[in-house]
Amino acid sequence: MHILVTNDDGILAPGISALAAALKPLGDVEVVAPESVQSGAAHAITFNAPLICERVSVDGAVFGWSVDGSPADCVKLGVHELCAKRPDLVVSGINAGANRGVDVIYSGTVAGAVEAAFIGIPSLAVSLEASGGFDFERAGAITRGIVSQALDVGIDPGTVLNVNIPHLGGRDPRGVKVVRQSTAPWTDRYDRRADPRGRPYFWLTDEGERGHSDPAETDLAALRAGYVTITPLQHDLTEYKQLDRLDRAWPRA
Amino acid sequence: MHILVTNDDGILAPGISALAAALKPLGDVEVVAPESVQSGAAHAITFNAPLICERVSVDGAVFGWSVDGSPADCVKLGVHELCAKRPDLVVSGINAGANRGVDVIYSGTVAGAVEAAFIGIPSLAVSLEASGGFDFERAGAITRGIVSQALDVGIDPGTVLNVNIPHLGGRDPRGVKVVRQSTAPWTDRYDRRADPRGRPYFWLTDEGERGHSDPAETDLAALRAGYVTITPLQHDLTEYKQLDRLDRAWPRA
Repeated sequence: MHILVTNDDGILAPGISALAAALKPLGDVEVVAPESVQSGAAHAITFNAPLICERVSVDGAVFGWSVDGSPADCVKLGVHELCAKRPDLVVSGINAGANRGVDVIYSGTVAGAVEAAFIGIPSLAVSLEASGGFDFERAGAITRGIVSQALDVGIDPGTVLNVNIPHLGGRDPRGVKVVRQSTAPWTDRYDRRADPRGRPYFWLTDEGERGHSDPAETDLAALRAGYVTITPLQHDLTEYKQLDRLDRAWPRA
Repeated sequence: MHILVTNDDGILAPGISALAAALKPLGDVEVVAPESVQSGAAHAITFNAPLICERVSVDGAVFGWSVDGSPADCVKLGVHELCAKRPDLVVSGINAGANRGVDVIYSGTVAGAVEAAFIGIPSLAVSLEASGGFDFERAGAITRGIVSQALDVGIDPGTVLNVNIPHLGGRDPRGVKVVRQSTAPWTDRYDRRADPRGRPYFWLTDEGERGHSDPAETDLAALRAGYVTITPLQHDLTEYKQLDRLDRAWPRA
């Protein structure tokens, strides 16, 4: 099996080296990842500028391609130009920080996997909940188990499995839950500051917790309860209930 | 009514001035838009850096706030900090180029509207199909009509209406269709070029047409047939059919 690995924390992030190492027993692993940190890049793509690529070595061995673009750029360019052969699987991560609920819309990690789904390649996005530090080695071992199980169970080529691993703190996750995405909003707050010339600027703060009224079967609630969460994602955003209502209500010419 | 207007082509783009002018008869219009072109920015947000804002005047009159961030940043910051009062409606556009099918995932224009939906404010994203040139004034008049009708029909606060206007070429649209989003993929192709030192780089080309096998009721097909398309969008990406299947199939610990 040929596995393309990408991320949004950049090719030198510890999460992607842990992921690549963890997946090696499952097949040939190729890394194509952003040159720089792309957190919050969402599904940005680059078409007004060219993409520069470089081979990156770590400890004297070739680790992969860096691309001066987004995670979605890496997957698109990796599949069409850089990979030795068409990947059978794309895995994006391991992100430093969870991507659950509406995070999936902001997340570059998830976007890398969604881009693979556009192209028709089964994919997973993997994120590790923030805590004091990140134990990527253990998260990698958990990821290998999840990916193996996913391949046994089967991933529809148009589907992304969005995986979140709870912060471990030495403990084991309580288990695995297949759960839907929460839609609970962030409560945003900006720090208003003054620049050296007295003009205001703004900085998005660490936002508050969400989804405390969510039912137990969302990704937010299950991750908070200590489970590894798996949420299948698709990319038809149509609101079908509104579609029917609007279609009936819209004035005819 | 208080209307926040944003876009992804930047505050000085002709599409946003046409939009702001077209919506003035409907209420108080405030503009908060990116300082620079953000095409393809998708739902990127800025949290690792501050956001710098400036009042922008056009022809001697204050036009709005520019923000050195993405469309989603503009809506978030606009609603929470910059707007005189909480907007009743957010309209993003008029984008130079259509946003239908999977474009909605890449589009900064759509992301601005989706951010409003997160916050619970009804919103529309408006895009004008590319042709030889862009007749934003006529597109603005069409947009005003669509927004008025949408307010009559009612937009659920969690829903975005994604509106595409066909390229006009002096003709009228054939009508308005409420249609679902196509999921037909782009056929991507990269130009492989050599830099002045002989090293390869890549540039995403204008991609081919999509969705020729789509049924008539997608946004892609209806826009191509000359209709204004309206697609209600939501932001729960869960693939519910896969959710049930995976939940039954996933190995229990």
